[in-house]
Amino acid sequence: MAPAKETAREKLIGAAVKVVRERGFNATSVDELCREAGVTKGAFFHHFPSKTDLGIAAAEAWKLHANALFGSAPYMAHEDPLDRFLGYLEFRRDMLTGEVSEFTCLAGTIVQESYETLPDLREACHDSIWGHALTLVPDIEAARARHGIGGAWTSESLALHTQAVLQGAFILAKASHGAAAARDSADHLIRYVRMLFNKPEKDA
Amino acid sequence: MAPAKETAREKLIGAAVKVVRERGFNATSVDELCREAGVTKGAFFHHFPSKTDLGIAAAEAWKLHANALFGSAPYMAHEDPLDRFLGYLEFRRDMLTGEVSEFTCLAGTIVQESYETLPDLREACHDSIWGHALTLVPDIEAARARHGIGGAWTSESLALHTQAVLQGAFILAKASHGAAAARDSADHLIRYVRMLFNKPEKDA
Repeated sequence: MAPAKETAREKLIGAAVKVVRERGFNATSVDELCREAGVTKGAFFHHFPSKTDLGIAAAEAWKLHANALFGSAPYMAHEDPLDRFLGYLEFRRDMLTGEVSEFTCLAGTIVQESYETLPDLREACHDSIWGHALTLVPDIEAARARHGIGGAWTSESLALHTQAVLQGAFILAKASHGAAAARDSADHLIRYVRMLFNKPEKDA
Repeated sequence: MAPAKETAREKLIGAAVKVVRERGFNATSVDELCREAGVTKGAFFHHFPSKTDLGIAAAEAWKLHANALFGSAPYMAHEDPLDRFLGYLEFRRDMLTGEVSEFTCLAGTIVQESYETLPDLREACHDSIWGHALTLVPDIEAARARHGIGGAWTSESLALHTQAVLQGAFILAKASHGAAAARDSADHLIRYVRMLFNKPEKDA
């Protein structure tokens, strides 16, 4: 079977993911999104009543993309849930390389610009960030049970903390135009998780 | 002596800090900044050749404001540099309350929208974020020396990691329209620093 042809809707979502990560949501016009996608303005408004609606669809697609990517990554084959969780964190750290716009987060970018002014878009970004982060909770819970780890923190809060560190690391990368500080921050997160689970690296 | 009267330049910087934190940089027009500041467009362009130049001045003022605020906070009176560092982190956590636009970061907001398109503004945000974060390095270094803490990490990277967590916590707050997840994330950071320095809370 030949791969399914990309629809105009899919092209527009792909264009939004690319251009908004580079320039932000408010600086990107419908005209630019159409040019990037190679579709007409008529096609745009056939699929999306407004740029905000495309942003909402892109945030949803972003979450599905992340969950498919990380859900099928090699570390998911580990038998110990702690190894899966640490594998996820190392995988995220190792992605922090190359062009800043290619490893940063669509939803985290959009929400900064829309949280006060576009409530539906904010809610879509919330669902995108939470909807990915919370996929980690079952493995964190299972790892705590298996390794006997208590502590005055919830597994949900640790899952969201991984998102906080990554989102903040993206901001450091944008400010410094490079990935070094972001990677260091991901290393601090990995060191923290290892300490929480009593599995420090020898030289940590 | 009467307090010095705020100049048009200062009013515009104050307006930028307020409005950009609410709506983002690209969504804010020169007209809106003038209206918020109560100054004429002529006064704007007398002081700033462009909105970008006001953004640069606001990022610089933001850093000076942060360094004055945190540099004179009560915890700075602690004799042990570790207590000063932990005091800073607890103070930052305790600020995560109330209106999201009032506790989030101007420079972290602007840099998301400008890092690829406005290099001078990106550089000003870099200087603002780094120029505040690195004020923590002397206390972290002194705390490591005093408490005999080694580890495969630099004090500079830990100072920048505090910024990563805070900046990411702001994104969680924006996405969820509330401070709870941000505070949880700051608590994880404090727990991490306590573990690094072998000072865990009893119930951590």
